[in-house]
Amino acid sequence: METEIRILEEPDLDNPVMVEGLPGIGNVGRIASEYLIKHLNAKKFAEIYSPHFMPVVLIHNDEVELLKFEFYYWKNENGRDVIFLTGDSQADKEGSRGHFEVSEKVLDLAEQFDVERIITLGGYSTGDIKEEIDGDPEVLGTVTDKNMIEELNEYNINFDDTDSRIGMIVGGTGLLLGLAKKRGIEGLCLMGETAGFPILTDPKSAEGIVKVVSDVLDVEISLDDIEEKVDEMEDFLDKLENVQKKAMREMDQSDSEDEKLRYIG
Amino acid sequence: METEIRILEEPDLDNPVMVEGLPGIGNVGRIASEYLIKHLNAKKFAEIYSPHFMPVVLIHNDEVELLKFEFYYWKNENGRDVIFLTGDSQADKEGSRGHFEVSEKVLDLAEQFDVERIITLGGYSTGDIKEEIDGDPEVLGTVTDKNMIEELNEYNINFDDTDSRIGMIVGGTGLLLGLAKKRGIEGLCLMGETAGFPILTDPKSAEGIVKVVSDVLDVEISLDDIEEKVDEMEDFLDKLENVQKKAMREMDQSDSEDEKLRYIG
Amino acid sequence: METEIRILEEPDLDNPVMVEGLPGIGNVGRIASEYLIKHLNAKKFAEIYSPHFMPVVLIHNDEVELLKFEFYYWKNENGRDVIFLTGDSQADKEGSRGHFEVSEKVLDLAEQFDVERIITLGGYSTGDIKEEIDGDPEVLGTVTDKNMIEELNEYNINFDDTDSRIGMIVGGTGLLLGLAKKRGIEGLCLMGETAGFPILTDPKSAEGIVKVVSDVLDVEISLDDIEEKVDEMEDFLDKLENVQKKAMREMDQSDSEDEKLRYIG
Amino acid sequence: METEIRILEEPDLDNPVMVEGLPGIGNVGRIASEYLIKHLNAKKFAEIYSPHFMPVVLIHNDEVELLKFEFYYWKNENGRDVIFLTGDSQADKEGSRGHFEVSEKVLDLAEQFDVERIITLGGYSTGDIKEEIDGDPEVLGTVTDKNMIEELNEYNINFDDTDSRIGMIVGGTGLLLGLAKKRGIEGLCLMGETAGFPILTDPKSAEGIVKVVSDVLDVEISLDDIEEKVDEMEDFLDKLENVQKKAMREMDQSDSEDEKLRYIG
Repeated sequence: METEIRILEEPDLDNPVMVEGLPGIGNVGRIASEYLIKHLNAKKFAEIYSPHFMPVVLIHNDEVELLKFEFYYWKNENGRDVIFLTGDSQADKEGSRGHFEVSEKVLDLAEQFDVERIITLGGYSTGDIKEEIDGDPEVLGTVTDKNMIEELNEYNINFDDTDSRIGMIVGGTGLLLGLAKKRGIEGLCLMGETAGFPILTDPKSAEGIVKVVSDVLDVEISLDDIEEKVDEMEDFLDKLENVQKKAMREMDQSDSEDEKLRYIG
Repeated sequence: METEIRILEEPDLDNPVMVEGLPGIGNVGRIASEYLIKHLNAKKFAEIYSPHFMPVVLIHNDEVELLKFEFYYWKNENGRDVIFLTGDSQADKEGSRGHFEVSEKVLDLAEQFDVERIITLGGYSTGDIKEEIDGDPEVLGTVTDKNMIEELNEYNINFDDTDSRIGMIVGGTGLLLGLAKKRGIEGLCLMGETAGFPILTDPKSAEGIVKVVSDVLDVEISLDDIEEKVDEMEDFLDKLENVQKKAMREMDQSDSEDEKLRYIG
Repeated sequence: METEIRILEEPDLDNPVMVEGLPGIGNVGRIASEYLIKHLNAKKFAEIYSPHFMPVVLIHNDEVELLKFEFYYWKNENGRDVIFLTGDSQADKEGSRGHFEVSEKVLDLAEQFDVERIITLGGYSTGDIKEEIDGDPEVLGTVTDKNMIEELNEYNINFDDTDSRIGMIVGGTGLLLGLAKKRGIEGLCLMGETAGFPILTDPKSAEGIVKVVSDVLDVEISLDDIEEKVDEMEDFLDKLENVQKKAMREMDQSDSEDEKLRYIG
Repeated sequence: METEIRILEEPDLDNPVMVEGLPGIGNVGRIASEYLIKHLNAKKFAEIYSPHFMPVVLIHNDEVELLKFEFYYWKNENGRDVIFLTGDSQADKEGSRGHFEVSEKVLDLAEQFDVERIITLGGYSTGDIKEEIDGDPEVLGTVTDKNMIEELNEYNINFDDTDSRIGMIVGGTGLLLGLAKKRGIEGLCLMGETAGFPILTDPKSAEGIVKVVSDVLDVEISLDDIEEKVDEMEDFLDKLENVQKKAMREMDQSDSEDEKLRYIG
């Protein structure tokens, strides 16, 4: 099996922007993209399956499911259409190649639909566990071409401190930008400040990202119900977290078991 | 060397079901499949060899043997024929790709013999070392398509608690289901409750699985001698366990040795 | 770069046996093969290079050298000719695939020269650090086809206890046998008992192996100078060991350095 | 994505020598090559991108950048032209293959421009943290063909102690030499003595290497401003080091996060 794009529907999109939000620090990217998908009622049209995802199936709504990336489209009456990318996990940590292969497939799909700009969403940790974020969490940005900054300066994005505070982006999110640049696709990365343990889901940071993205996309997103929707998602993520703790315990046991069985035939 | 299917005989099978039981938690899947193979006198007709299995040979009956998967068929006079899959080990843990490649080959073979349904067998740990299972261990189930559940409700399978208690299936067994679903092959996973240390072989849990599988396959399996046969297998597994402890010790030494030699040429 | 066979000369060999002795437990296999190569004045005719060997060059006699396998041939006036395989290291531990790929290349070369039997040489540890071997160290054997045992029973090889004492062979040496069997090439594995720390070179065990191999090959090997030659080799191995300790220290530092540099660009 | 050479310009070079200086012990190779590139005003003409580099993008001058190797050329009026190779990192440590693949691509480019000799630059640690280097740090050398030593004896390179003090070269730098030799390209490795923590950048050692390289290339390099230029680079490296510490902390968190998310979907 190779990494594989499955097109479920061929939407007719007008100069679309791709917005990526995958699991990562503070779950910021994933929460933001899922909130936007639900709020805008975006429609799923493609999936990516890959042997570089974990060899795991999820049991969800009484059925098993492979891990995958999902693509949704949204027809924007006021401007450029949008393709959202969300997913269950990033590529497996078995080395660099998986990250590269999966990111290249995402960009193949982007080119197939004439995407000329990608916006990637994520979090960055202040690194201080005790620190409280005062006021709204800041959104830092970086781009594939610094000429883009002038156009983007009207939004609430801090480009000045990204060099010194972030310095580099690790994993699929960063790679997607770097590889996009190599193909001549513009990339913008938005990172929401996350305080405390970055391992915890941070809806407040995701909310900050949603605001900026809707400004950039010129989409009106009612923020009235965002707290409630984020709360709903948090419940879901909490539930998953419990499942996961048990699963990891079992996997540890399964590993030991495998270790054992591997050597006895 | 690529992962390779070796067909030893081309049986003429009528609408066969594939039943997989590989090493895993509590050895439940493997014991169950081997018991069924022996009891039904199923005949070996195919093997899978793979560079994704451990680089190890077993010394068995005075000869060396590569690790492999083995396929057996059984002509069922009362209903659908059966293909059993058992094996020495799951794919190596060198990353996801091995699991994917080996599972895809299993499904290639399944399609070659027109298999439309796969049943995978395994154990799940209650996670509590001290806990005793009261009465018969429960069998949890999950499927690739929830419409299958209605048909399967007549059997002694708990589908309701799988979501919350299991949540996900790690490794080849789960992947086989997920990839089968992607190919349009139906999958049913049966997991026998295992108490205590899941690293120990649990014949009682395997017995529970055998009962359910024989119901589902509409096969009459005398359970009179199951205790005895499982006892025999346990003796065999105990012997292997001793061999293995010694082997792991040697391998550790061999590793250190290799470490050393690697750097001195 | 793929794993690559380099033929330096095309010897005309009569029904040759291949004798493999690579680094491993107690260095037994490698010392034995190198002793035989030197004593018989066997001639190098082929090499294998592989990206599955460590990314290291040795500095030897004022020149750098990639790690490699080396093949030597010896024309036997009394019987079957011999191909010796020795090398700087086994395949890298990056997963199973390297071991499989390299072993398959060795067998490709074996088939090119019509090798019908392979003898692999190694050590096995008694696992007891304090134990002293009384008298000569025993040689355990195992085969790819148990019908070979009758023919080999005249030699000083213990086939009876291999199952229970060894149980499995880990790494390239075992794999070579298992893969040879799959190709219909006969395989014999000879393992010399090694007491004490298996990480130490054990020339006495190697000497035991040399005796059995020369019997099996019907080659007269003067054992008069074996102690002396093994002593010479031990000096060489000691020297390499010192070099290696320093190299590992540097590599650790180089690793940390790399770690550091990887993230700062 | 495969490892990929990007030629930006096709310079017309006369019998060029390639000089490699990548990150490694004491940063010696990288500082030396970057100093030479800046001082000689060498011009970039090619890049190598590879999925074997870390899945990371750097944020530099307000833009993201993939990790890469960079090639610069310099037209030498007094002798052979020079190609410099520098880069952000060595290949990823996911096993041997990455190192081999990237090194082979470097040699493909070398052959494309008729390079017949490669000089690799690096450091070697005395292994003693407290030790102070008296006077100038020594430069040890090794070659792919010992006949080269006579020609090189006029320069300030110690070839006599490399065997006993170094013994082997680990990673891309060594591999480049070993693989060059296999292609019939001459290789010279220059290693500058580094005292103290090899993890620290050692400009003094790099300075020693620069002197020897300019002698060997017959290039006049003013050493008047070397301290100052090395100081400048040190400031840059210090800044990067701070960025990196923060990045590694975040990556650790991102890893845990990923671990977590991988299992909850």
